[in-house]
Amino acid sequence: MGQADVETAISELRDLLGPRLSVARPDREAHAGSETWHSAAPPDAVAWPESTAEVAAILRICYARDLPVIAWGTGTSLEGHALAPLGGVSLDMSRMDRVLEVRPEDMLAVVQPGVTREALNVELRATGLFFPVDPGANASLGGMAATRASGTTTVRYGSMRDNVLGLEAVLSDGRIIRTGSRAAKSSAGYDLTALLLGSEGTLGIITELTLRLHGQPEEIASAVCAFPGLDDAVNCVIATIQSGIPMARIEFVDEATARAFNLYAGTQLPEKPHLMIEFNGSATGVAEDAARFGEIAAEFGGVDFDWTTSPEARARLWKMRHGAYPACLALRPGATAMVTDICVPISRLAEAVAETRADIDAAGMLGPILGHVGDGNFHAILLIDPDQSEDLARAKRISARLAERALRMGGTITGEHGVGIGKRHLMQAEHGEGWQVMGAIKEALDPKNILNPGKLVP
Amino acid sequence: MGQADVETAISELRDLLGPRLSVARPDREAHAGSETWHSAAPPDAVAWPESTAEVAAILRICYARDLPVIAWGTGTSLEGHALAPLGGVSLDMSRMDRVLEVRPEDMLAVVQPGVTREALNVELRATGLFFPVDPGANASLGGMAATRASGTTTVRYGSMRDNVLGLEAVLSDGRIIRTGSRAAKSSAGYDLTALLLGSEGTLGIITELTLRLHGQPEEIASAVCAFPGLDDAVNCVIATIQSGIPMARIEFVDEATARAFNLYAGTQLPEKPHLMIEFNGSATGVAEDAARFGEIAAEFGGVDFDWTTSPEARARLWKMRHGAYPACLALRPGATAMVTDICVPISRLAEAVAETRADIDAAGMLGPILGHVGDGNFHAILLIDPDQSEDLARAKRISARLAERALRMGGTITGEHGVGIGKRHLMQAEHGEGWQVMGAIKEALDPKNILNPGKLVP
Repeated sequence: MGQADVETAISELRDLLGPRLSVARPDREAHAGSETWHSAAPPDAVAWPESTAEVAAILRICYARDLPVIAWGTGTSLEGHALAPLGGVSLDMSRMDRVLEVRPEDMLAVVQPGVTREALNVELRATGLFFPVDPGANASLGGMAATRASGTTTVRYGSMRDNVLGLEAVLSDGRIIRTGSRAAKSSAGYDLTALLLGSEGTLGIITELTLRLHGQPEEIASAVCAFPGLDDAVNCVIATIQSGIPMARIEFVDEATARAFNLYAGTQLPEKPHLMIEFNGSATGVAEDAARFGEIAAEFGGVDFDWTTSPEARARLWKMRHGAYPACLALRPGATAMVTDICVPISRLAEAVAETRADIDAAGMLGPILGHVGDGNFHAILLIDPDQSEDLARAKRISARLAERALRMGGTITGEHGVGIGKRHLMQAEHGEGWQVMGAIKEALDPKNILNPGKLVP
Repeated sequence: MGQADVETAISELRDLLGPRLSVARPDREAHAGSETWHSAAPPDAVAWPESTAEVAAILRICYARDLPVIAWGTGTSLEGHALAPLGGVSLDMSRMDRVLEVRPEDMLAVVQPGVTREALNVELRATGLFFPVDPGANASLGGMAATRASGTTTVRYGSMRDNVLGLEAVLSDGRIIRTGSRAAKSSAGYDLTALLLGSEGTLGIITELTLRLHGQPEEIASAVCAFPGLDDAVNCVIATIQSGIPMARIEFVDEATARAFNLYAGTQLPEKPHLMIEFNGSATGVAEDAARFGEIAAEFGGVDFDWTTSPEARARLWKMRHGAYPACLALRPGATAMVTDICVPISRLAEAVAETRADIDAAGMLGPILGHVGDGNFHAILLIDPDQSEDLARAKRISARLAERALRMGGTITGEHGVGIGKRHLMQAEHGEGWQVMGAIKEALDPKNILNPGKLVP
């Protein structure tokens, strides 16, 4: 790809899109960054398509001219997925933001990729249904699909893998495919839906999603509970899962995170490990679940229990939890962060968190730990001064040890944040020959390597 | 592949496997057939590997000599998946039948592919856990994974797609890959586990599975209930799903199937549409669910309700349901069957079943209808006299109209039986360009087309 090719392609894209194609520096810079430590990498141009046909036309141009294409949702990913290290066109999907169809009787919705999860749930409010996957950020559903997002509700409702019935996607050469169907299941060949979910824009650009909806629970009860130690909190979760109590959310925060909340959000949590729990169900079911959980928690020293079914109190709780990232950043003014993301079998979770805490303390870093403890998934928010290169190096060492720990314990290097740029160097260690298989699939579907190049695959 | 190559390969395989390689006619014929109308197609030889390393060695030989390799589980698939229309080696996995590890605290088990679902559940009995996927036949777990099996419990526990955490598989050239992990979730790249599930042995030979287990329910209640008409039964199911009552199984059988049960199993069901229902949970939860379901069923004219929590009565019920295929075959002595398998959005189910019933009646055929109504998936068992070619032609016309109907309604040509030989001609209609993508993936991973050739892909 020479500079001439880039200019020709951009000129052709301008003919197609008019003012919805920009090479202006502010637009490029707005599509160059991420919320974490990755260096900005601006694209050559930004395009705002409004239809699948336009996405296909854009890809035909870029395919002919070998120009990289990187989809952009809301820019909230943490591993640099949407950066443009090799230039190209950033495909901003924010104008494809329509809810195309809601079918309550089939408990599904069809949406364009730029719809955010919160916008969809506002639209669904009157139907008695909701879309449960909740990664914290108000991400676009296309981005959530491309990164196989999960989050606080995954312990009950699953991740994007479990809640996407089908996709429409545009391949690198502009061909359009539709995967899955509106039926609840299928065994008609390779699961292309699952292949695209988590492919991070390297195999195709998602232009439509058929989503599985769930009934809004009759009652929701939530609580925060402090524990004497990390082990107690984690063992309480294991015992709860094994007893079959269906938790809708079960989140862990450590004492450092509790302190961050207190400083940032004005809460008055004891500086101890906490669980944040939610139950969904019928009024009697939720009461029964909460009572049984309370008994288990008491066995592990859980205190300061305060159940509530008040929507306002619940909203405050999850707003606090979802605000953990800025709260932790505020512990060190001017800091950015590396956010780790391993996921291990739950029997190894307490050990994994304790070893990680010891690593962080030994390095003399600030690094609150929190996570989706019901899935065995936790994050350390390693605070970095962007002007101190030794900070980044220390964080990278801790992160490498975390990855090694996850694999040793039978887990994964990334539970939900994905690969992007940040985790690519760990893929060989996790997948071995399987990573070469991913590369072979990539080459078969994107032979010119124009779709989000430099990410995920070898 | 010439005859000489075949003989060389078989001689090399004999050197490797000794008596666990057979070219004897009875062995070849035992791996040539299926339970339905597909013509027998014997392999050139049958191999019984005992380890992953042996499978890899077999594949290296077959890859070098271009010899087809077809995995064989228990031979219970319905679309000719395991036939050898192009010859080659049938890889009988029945000697790889060990449960390698059970980890109750992580609710997972690691098994070899020849373990059957019943054998695994016997092994799990004392742990308080079970593996829920139940396609009826006592199939091998490797075969169930390769075909992405589901069945009566899928409405509650999901299909193989939802209950396989990871796989080990041997690629066509003998390379071994491991997919997934023991963690509850991962976003580390392409979902190779999901890609292999349902790939029907065309991408790799599954040699190990990590399975998600579930807690044995404290209480199980089941019942049979007759309805005045098809619509009433289906609408009862839709209302139940929308009310959020968690059914563990919800099966539909039509009047013809009820008659078949009465004749074959000596039951005395009214010759009407029936639902067979099961609830799993705590004793109070199950009682509450059953009561709520009873109210809904009554609104739709459901009668003859008889709840039971007796294990013996329940075993009789599901034995009867799982015996539907031989019971229906017995309606026409000497018959074989074509078993259709569409799956539609549940809002279209009553219409789809009614149109299918009209088609079958208009053709003057015997064809009981039954299905996993909670998933929108139903089967017509079209009885065929193998000596009358017009019978097969009529069944194929009905089946073609079913596929067209499924796609028109937003569903799929196969909910759970897979593609194999029988549904390959319908793949283009369902997937369009997506089928070519499946072909591109197949070519990337099996460039010599030795893995189950003639199935699934273009």
